[in-house]
Amino acid sequence: MKVVEVLRMNGGIGDTSYANNSLVQRKVIVMTKPIIEQAMSDLYCNLFPKNLCIADLGCSSGANSFLVVSELIKIIEKERKKHGFQSPEFHYLFNDLPSNDFNTIFQSLGEFEHDLRKQFGEGFGPCYFSGVAGSFYSRLFPSKSLHFVHSSYSVHWLSQVPNFIEKNKGNIYITSTSPQSYIKAYYKQFENDFSNFLKYRSEELMKGGKMVLTFLGRESEDLSIKEYCCYIWELLAMVLNELVFEGLIEEDKVDSFDVPNYTPSPREVKYIVEKEGSFTINRLETTRVNWNNSSYESNNGGYKMTRCMRAVAEPLLINQFGPKLMDLVFQKYEKIISDCMAKEKAEFVNVTVSLTKENN
Amino acid sequence: MKVVEVLRMNGGIGDTSYANNSLVQRKVIVMTKPIIEQAMSDLYCNLFPKNLCIADLGCSSGANSFLVVSELIKIIEKERKKHGFQSPEFHYLFNDLPSNDFNTIFQSLGEFEHDLRKQFGEGFGPCYFSGVAGSFYSRLFPSKSLHFVHSSYSVHWLSQVPNFIEKNKGNIYITSTSPQSYIKAYYKQFENDFSNFLKYRSEELMKGGKMVLTFLGRESEDLSIKEYCCYIWELLAMVLNELVFEGLIEEDKVDSFDVPNYTPSPREVKYIVEKEGSFTINRLETTRVNWNNSSYESNNGGYKMTRCMRAVAEPLLINQFGPKLMDLVFQKYEKIISDCMAKEKAEFVNVTVSLTKENN
Repeated sequence: MKVVEVLRMNGGIGDTSYANNSLVQRKVIVMTKPIIEQAMSDLYCNLFPKNLCIADLGCSSGANSFLVVSELIKIIEKERKKHGFQSPEFHYLFNDLPSNDFNTIFQSLGEFEHDLRKQFGEGFGPCYFSGVAGSFYSRLFPSKSLHFVHSSYSVHWLSQVPNFIEKNKGNIYITSTSPQSYIKAYYKQFENDFSNFLKYRSEELMKGGKMVLTFLGRESEDLSIKEYCCYIWELLAMVLNELVFEGLIEEDKVDSFDVPNYTPSPREVKYIVEKEGSFTINRLETTRVNWNNSSYESNNGGYKMTRCMRAVAEPLLINQFGPKLMDLVFQKYEKIISDCMAKEKAEFVNVTVSLTKENN
Repeated sequence: MKVVEVLRMNGGIGDTSYANNSLVQRKVIVMTKPIIEQAMSDLYCNLFPKNLCIADLGCSSGANSFLVVSELIKIIEKERKKHGFQSPEFHYLFNDLPSNDFNTIFQSLGEFEHDLRKQFGEGFGPCYFSGVAGSFYSRLFPSKSLHFVHSSYSVHWLSQVPNFIEKNKGNIYITSTSPQSYIKAYYKQFENDFSNFLKYRSEELMKGGKMVLTFLGRESEDLSIKEYCCYIWELLAMVLNELVFEGLIEEDKVDSFDVPNYTPSPREVKYIVEKEGSFTINRLETTRVNWNNSSYESNNGGYKMTRCMRAVAEPLLINQFGPKLMDLVFQKYEKIISDCMAKEKAEFVNVTVSLTKENN
C-alpha cells in the first residue's frame, strides 16, 4: 500500500464525509487552544511580522480546517491591537495529501472570508489562502518561508506500513499481545518519519518560527496497558475477523492489513525531537478527550464514533477489502463500539508539543 | 448570474472535460511561446532570483496547466545553465475560480514532478506547487510576492455580465447587428475589469516583475467585420433559437442570456494598459489559430471544436437552461459548426501582450 495514494479522510460534504463527522477532532483543536495561543502570541511579540505565513498540515476538509484559521487569526488580531500595530498580511496554507478534497475547501473560502471580515472588522487582513498538496514527509514549502506550523491529529499517520519481521496474526495494529518485533517496527517507522518531518519543517520555518503538533497518542510507555488509540483498531480487527468467519473476506487479507499509524507517548516525542536537534521544546502536554461528544445524548455516542471512524478509515479499508462490505463493516463496528462505550468511559489521549526553531 | 460561481471549464478527466478537449488552447500556448520566452529570459537575467515565484491565472485543469509550467521551467533552466548559476527554488501557483477542479491538478502533480526531474536532471529545482482559488479581479497573492504572471485565454472572461440599457434580442453576444449601447456596455465592463486586473497584479508583482497575457481577441476595431471569437457565440445563439422555435426553451431565457466575455483588439488592450499606468508594454502582438487541429483529419474538426466549446461553455449554459438539453444543444452545434468549417477557413485571433512592472 502506498500511503500517500491511499490515505485520505472521506471527501465531500455527504453523510459519511469527514467534514460532517469530525467532532472529536474539533474538540481536540479546541482543547489545545491554550498551547496554540501561547506559541502564536510569543511568535508575534518576538517578530512583529508585517506578513505572517502559517501552514496547517493535514488540514483535511470541512469546518475543522477553518476553525484553526480563525482561532489563529483571533490570537494575532488581539495581540496586534494590544500593541497598536496594523493587522499583518496573513498568508495561510492548507496542506494535505493529494487525494484530499481541496475543491470543497476552496468552494467554502468565499463565505469564510466574508465571515472573517464581519468578525474582525475593516482593519483586518488582508488574508491570502493557498492549497498545497503533498506528504509532509517531504519538503512542501520554499525555504524559510513559514512563521508558524500547526498540525492536529495528522502526524501520527506514518509514511508507510512498517516492514515487519513477524506478522501480528488476526490483528491490524498494536495490541497488548503483539510480538515485540512488530511493536518495534512500528516505533522505528515513527522515529524515522517524525525525524524527517522535523528536518523538513526546520528548513521551511524561519528563525524563531514555531510549531504546535497534536498527536493521537498514549500516556504510558507500557503497551500492555489498554489505550483507546489502539483499542479502536482492535475493535475493527474484531469486525474483520467476524467477516472472515462468515466467509465474506479472506483471512490473508486481514493478516496482511496493518494500519499506517503510530500513537506515540510524550517521552517518545521528546526523545525524537531532541535527537533530531532543530527544535527546542516549549511545552509537551497530554490531554484526554472523551469519545462521547457532550453536546449529544450519550446513547448515540456509538453511532457518532462509528461515523467518525468511517470518515477516517474507510479509504484505507476500501483499498484492502474493496467497497462492497463497507456498510456491513460499520454496522458491526457500531454495535461493538456502542457496547464498549456503554460499559466504560472511553477516552483518547492527545499528546501536544509546542516547538521553536532556534537556529538558522 | 454570479460569474465567479458559475464560470468554470468542465472538470474531471471524462469525455466532456476541459482536460480532454482543450487542443485549441494548447496550440495557443505553444504559439505564444517566443513571447513568453523573451519575457522570462529578460526577467531572469535582470534579477537572477534565488527563488522564483510564478503564477498562472486561469490555469484550469489538465495537460495545458502543466504545459505552461514545464515551458517556463525549461526557459529558466537554459538561462541559469548558460550563466553557470544554480537552479532557483521554483514556487509555482495555480490559480483559477473556486469551482475549478483543483483536485485533478493536485492528483497529477506527483507524476508531473517525477517527469520534471527526469527531464531536467539532478541539479534542477526544488519546485513547490500551490493552488490559489479566487477571481483574478480581486487580490489573490501577498504584496510583492510574484516574479512572473502568465495567463492564456482567461482574461477575456469578464467579472460579470455588463449592465445593458438595450437588449440584444435573439443573440447572446456581440454580433454585427448589435445595438451600439450593447457593444459599449461590453467594452466598458472589459475596461473596468482589465484595469482592476492590472492594478491588483501590480501590487502582487515585485519591481521588474513581468506578465504575459493572451486574450481571445479581435484584429479589427470595426465590429461589423466578422470575427470568429464572436461568431462561435452567434452559432450557439442559432442553436438556442432553434430550441425556442421547437418549444424546448423559452424565448425570454435566450434574450436574458449574455456571455460574460469580451474579446478585445490590440488597440483596446494598449489603451487600457497605458491609462492604468502600472505597466510598460514590451510586446503586443496578434496571432491566428485555426479551429482545425492540424494533427487531425479536417473532417472531424466540427466534432473537436464542439467538444472544446462544450468543455468551456456548458457550465454557463446549464446555469441558464438546465442540464437536460445539453446533449441536444451540442448535437445541433456540431452540425452547424461542421458546415461552417467545411465552407470557410475559421480562425481565432489571439492578442498577446508582454508587460513589465516598472515602479515599486
